Amino acid sequence: MTDALLPLANGDTERCDAARNRRLLLDAAVALVDERGPDGLTMDAVASRAGVGKGTVFRRFGSRAGLMLALLDHTETALQQSFMFGPPPLGPGAPPLERLLAYGRARFGVVEVQGELLRSAENSGSSRFAAPAWAVGFTHVAGLLRAADVQGDIELLTYAVLAPLEATVVLHQLRDGRLTPERLVRGWEDLVLRITRPDSPE
Amino acid sequence: MTDALLPLANGDTERCDAARNRRLLLDAAVALVDERGPDGLTMDAVASRAGVGKGTVFRRFGSRAGLMLALLDHTETALQQSFMFGPPPLGPGAPPLERLLAYGRARFGVVEVQGELLRSAENSGSSRFAAPAWAVGFTHVAGLLRAADVQGDIELLTYAVLAPLEATVVLHQLRDGRLTPERLVRGWEDLVLRITRPDSPE
Repeated sequence: MTDALLPLANGDTERCDAARNRRLLLDAAVALVDERGPDGLTMDAVASRAGVGKGTVFRRFGSRAGLMLALLDHTETALQQSFMFGPPPLGPGAPPLERLLAYGRARFGVVEVQGELLRSAENSGSSRFAAPAWAVGFTHVAGLLRAADVQGDIELLTYAVLAPLEATVVLHQLRDGRLTPERLVRGWEDLVLRITRPDSPE
Repeated sequence: MTDALLPLANGDTERCDAARNRRLLLDAAVALVDERGPDGLTMDAVASRAGVGKGTVFRRFGSRAGLMLALLDHTETALQQSFMFGPPPLGPGAPPLERLLAYGRARFGVVEVQGELLRSAENSGSSRFAAPAWAVGFTHVAGLLRAADVQGDIELLTYAVLAPLEATVVLHQLRDGRLTPERLVRGWEDLVLRITRPDSPE
């Protein structure tokens, strides 16, 4: 987490405090979901974990649904920061294919912790492809495929690379299919290598 | 469409007539969706097209939702018949990779015509992976990958092969992404070839 996550107004102490409080509450929410799963995410638990009154949490997020949306946005922003400005291999500096593999591992990590929240978002009224976060990830992956000099229909290959990272699929595989997270990561990395390897040896 | 679609009781004329009427109504429904899109599928239109009273359609399917479910089931059964017992390349007799490519083309064809119905089904309450039809398609594709002697995690590769055929994805690509059906089919065939080609030349 860096200060860059939330651009602050110039020296406005009140807004600065508000931003800090918001981050404090969201960090508490992340820790709760991490430890107890999505069901552990209640307004009460967040308040007590962050050491504030329950009213503060309600004033900030309106409802548990609002808190969940803010949490997803928080996680997504942190991931975007990491792949755009963070250290390699996720951030700039590593070869594109290594960055792509690191991106997938990071995504699986997020789904393992916040999968239920993500699944609800994916299956909500509007198309899952309409989410701004989805577009950012799509652009990032397409750019890496181009940088890796992959030949072919990059747009459709990007869909193919991203499909197995979708929370709905991952949760189904982990729970109903009883596959392990390690197997999913390994299988996805193998898929990426198949998709990106050149047609014939030079 | 063959008689095998609906197993009939032994010589029971009444049940035989009922099955025939059902098929008559469903064929009318398929034709309507084909010509006018999903919005053209009304109980009235099916009745008038099949030359029966509206009451007959309601008695048979209960509601428009019931008709839509029956229609999806009808299409799915016809596709299953084709890949299990029909002529090659979709049915037995062609090399497994050719059968796989034919399966994808057939799936795209179904989505183009009945995409809206399929998308509703995919995004309904229960997981899209819970549908019996999904399991049949999954088993078929996994079997073809094995028969083609593809090495690797066949279960996860099957998910990767099937993901781009999902109605939710295809409709998004056709409408919001303005991709053409031809491009989707070509891109999917290319994906299958990348996934199935051997690691290194012999």
